Amino acid sequence: MKLNIAVLAGDGIGPEIVAQAQKVINAVATKFNHEISYTPALVGATAIDQVGDPYPEATHQICMDSDAVLFGAIGDPKFDNDPKAKVRPEQGLLAMRKKLGLYANIRPVATFPSLLDKSPLRKDIVEGADLLVVRELTGGIYFGEKGRSEDLKKAFDTCTYTTDEIERILKLAFAYAAKRNKRLTIVDKANVLATSRLWRETAQAMEPDYKDIEVDYMFVDNAAMQLIQWPKKFDVMVTENMFGDILSDEASVITGSLGLLPSASVGVHTSVFEPIHGSYPQAAGKNIANPVATVLSAAMLLESFDLLEEAELIRQAVNKSLEQGIVTEDISKEKPYKTSQVGDWLASYI
Amino acid sequence: MKLNIAVLAGDGIGPEIVAQAQKVINAVATKFNHEISYTPALVGATAIDQVGDPYPEATHQICMDSDAVLFGAIGDPKFDNDPKAKVRPEQGLLAMRKKLGLYANIRPVATFPSLLDKSPLRKDIVEGADLLVVRELTGGIYFGEKGRSEDLKKAFDTCTYTTDEIERILKLAFAYAAKRNKRLTIVDKANVLATSRLWRETAQAMEPDYKDIEVDYMFVDNAAMQLIQWPKKFDVMVTENMFGDILSDEASVITGSLGLLPSASVGVHTSVFEPIHGSYPQAAGKNIANPVATVLSAAMLLESFDLLEEAELIRQAVNKSLEQGIVTEDISKEKPYKTSQVGDWLASYI
Ligand SMILES: CC(C)[C@H](C(=O)O)[C@@H](O)C(=O)O
Ligand SMILES: CC(C)[C@H](C(=O)O)[C@@H](O)C(=O)O
Repeated sequence: MKLNIAVLAGDGIGPEIVAQAQKVINAVATKFNHEISYTPALVGATAIDQVGDPYPEATHQICMDSDAVLFGAIGDPKFDNDPKAKVRPEQGLLAMRKKLGLYANIRPVATFPSLLDKSPLRKDIVEGADLLVVRELTGGIYFGEKGRSEDLKKAFDTCTYTTDEIERILKLAFAYAAKRNKRLTIVDKANVLATSRLWRETAQAMEPDYKDIEVDYMFVDNAAMQLIQWPKKFDVMVTENMFGDILSDEASVITGSLGLLPSASVGVHTSVFEPIHGSYPQAAGKNIANPVATVLSAAMLLESFDLLEEAELIRQAVNKSLEQGIVTEDISKEKPYKTSQVGDWLASYI
Repeated sequence: MKLNIAVLAGDGIGPEIVAQAQKVINAVATKFNHEISYTPALVGATAIDQVGDPYPEATHQICMDSDAVLFGAIGDPKFDNDPKAKVRPEQGLLAMRKKLGLYANIRPVATFPSLLDKSPLRKDIVEGADLLVVRELTGGIYFGEKGRSEDLKKAFDTCTYTTDEIERILKLAFAYAAKRNKRLTIVDKANVLATSRLWRETAQAMEPDYKDIEVDYMFVDNAAMQLIQWPKKFDVMVTENMFGDILSDEASVITGSLGLLPSASVGVHTSVFEPIHGSYPQAAGKNIANPVATVLSAAMLLESFDLLEEAELIRQAVNKSLEQGIVTEDISKEKPYKTSQVGDWLASYI
């Protein structure tokens, strides 16, 4: 197979971790005889510094022309404590989501047997947890009309959803549930919000088409509780943009392996694969960041082209590296490996 | 002191648990020579059944005339799976909040040493956690304009906030922080929402008036993570209505003692004191529900009138009951006490 991958390494540790994922993809390509080409492009604070735009048009074109996007991380502390800064790295992220039509963010969260003691939860609560959070990513209060009154004393944000948007994401969520354990939890706040009531009605209308999926509706406050109390009871969870932002981050810490979690953002034009962790500026350039989340994002990338064996081999390599302690300092302080050493080990295992 | 308490027992286990709190208040009143009168009133599903309104005008008048409201719980499963039901118990709750001007919901969350093993979190993570969540309760997306397009294919909700609303709740949060460990975490999504940016600007403008309070701004997704990863790092957390709904429920499960947590909703006209748990319909009438959260809510009620010694005595009684195993079946399955027995024990201890 021929794949043309746009590489948006971004800020902080982005370049280092993306480089390891590329090593791993290359190893897989050699072994399975695929032809991979990479086109790098600017994004985030780096792009603001160089061309004044966190998601430049040139980058957008490269993404549009790609089969998939491998993304590192964005964010720089110099923008953090200034909510009024005119241009911010996050705007690039939101622009990318909108322009590429990245309507679904997919986050698998599963415990790694060798890392159970990293979880803040009790072992018996978290052991064996394996869930997938599907977050709507281009609608809701993120993209609705917002602003300030003339006297600046009043602000507003609008959350909107259409049945088309809701159906599109629910279809995807049902499909994931069908491939997994056939349980789908739809999270909303239908006792308060009009948009949530539209979500619930739309879902209820779709249910008959998915008779083999067990559907469950849950209010967002309840979901925030149950994720911690009984993480094992969830299979696929789907929800709107803002609730998904909160719940997917909450879900990501229950296994204690934040530095290992990948994600995919499924798009209309192309899809983006990235670690869920941030740009970790304190570690930038030190060759100490954990590349595994990005490597596993690369596995999701290959999987999206039905390269299942390839993806599985990457996951196997990662599991072996964890078992054998070929890990960065966030996982083991005793004899930590460097970022590049972990990448080399994974590539040579493959 | 003379106190006139409106008693809104509500649905499910509401009447049973409120009765125990009244026993405890009466014991305190006798000991400290206070004169307490109670005026019962209808609310919730019970009120819908009897007069067709979950927060009838007569109830509202009783609340308006009261010094404080002791509230049980509302909610009935017969309304649960019908998001289109015309009248729902929750509407009564929202109407009550709005009409009584209950602008702040206060939830203290602290570990009970004797119940550490109930927490879903690891003991070392949760031991000693002691935080207070302040949730704005009469603004935001709960009360903004909402609706559906004519063809029913589009829905919207509006989140609005004014500087006055924000200042009022932040003042209260700063005051709580001043009485506690002098740390205030202000949670928002200022990188995305216009209302959050107004919250942050308003807070930043207030900071100089509270020089002894250490203020910290946190995005809501990050707060959802840190609550689980490092619950001990929080002292007072304040946030807007929807985020507060999610985060206060999330916070309530980290200590594992959901059935023990009280709350206060501070109002313009009167204040409401209630357990944070629900109406638990499966247990209704069985005399097995845990009355402690309601009893501790009564302690918050007394405290709000500066009856500090009285409140402290109630807390002491509760701690003793937990240590001595005078607890309902949710806490100990071995030799559980009945709801009324726990109430009697607490009253006679006092
Ligand atoms: C940076 C921010 C705008 C973004 C979001 O809220 O979507 C981030 O939190 C995420 O989840 O990817
Ligand atoms: C019942 C519901 C409307 C309510 C809310 O969301 O405020 C409840 O979840 C709560 O937190 O008191």
